[in-house]
Amino acid sequence: AGDVKAGRAKATQCAACHGIDGMSKLPEAPNLAGQTEEYLVKALNDFRSGERKNEMMTMMAKTLSDADVANLAAYYHSLGKQ
Amino acid sequence: AGDVKAGRAKATQCAACHGIDGMSKLPEAPNLAGQTEEYLVKALNDFRSGERKNEMMTMMAKTLSDADVANLAAYYHSLGKQ
Repeated sequence: AGDVKAGRAKATQCAACHGIDGMSKLPEAPNLAGQTEEYLVKALNDFRSGERKNEMMTMMAKTLSDADVANLAAYYHSLGKQ
Repeated sequence: AGDVKAGRAKATQCAACHGIDGMSKLPEAPNLAGQTEEYLVKALNDFRSGERKNEMMTMMAKTLSDADVANLAAYYHSLGKQ
C-alpha cells in the first residue's frame, strides 16, 4: 500500500484541479477525497497506459512512477472519510 | 439539468456496486456521492460511446437514455455534499 505522506507531497501537482483536500476546483475534475484506493490506482494506471484518455490526465500521469501512483491513491483515499 | 427524484429511481440499478447512497460497495467501484455533476455526465457518456471501457459499466450504460444520464448525475451529485 502507498505512503500517505509521500502522496501528499506529490499531490501538489494535482491540487490545481483536484484540490489538495481532494475537492474539485473545476466542474470537469472529479472529487477524489475518500475515493476507494483501488479505483484511484486503476484510474491513474489506465491514464498512464493510454487505456483511458484525457488530455490533461494523460500528460500528468506520464510523469508518475508506480510508487507515485500508490502514494497518491493512499493520500486521496485517506482524506474526507465519510 | 437532471431530475434528482427520477435519478434516485433509476439508481436502483447502480446500487449493488455504488450504493444507493453513493458510497461504494466494492473496492473497484468508485464512490459517487457528491461527485461533480459534469464529471458524472462525462463518465456515463464515455461508457455509452465506448470512449471509456469497463466490462460492467459498458453494459450498464448502454441501457441509459440521455435523460437517464442527466438524472443519475443530478442524483449522485446531490448526495453527501461535503
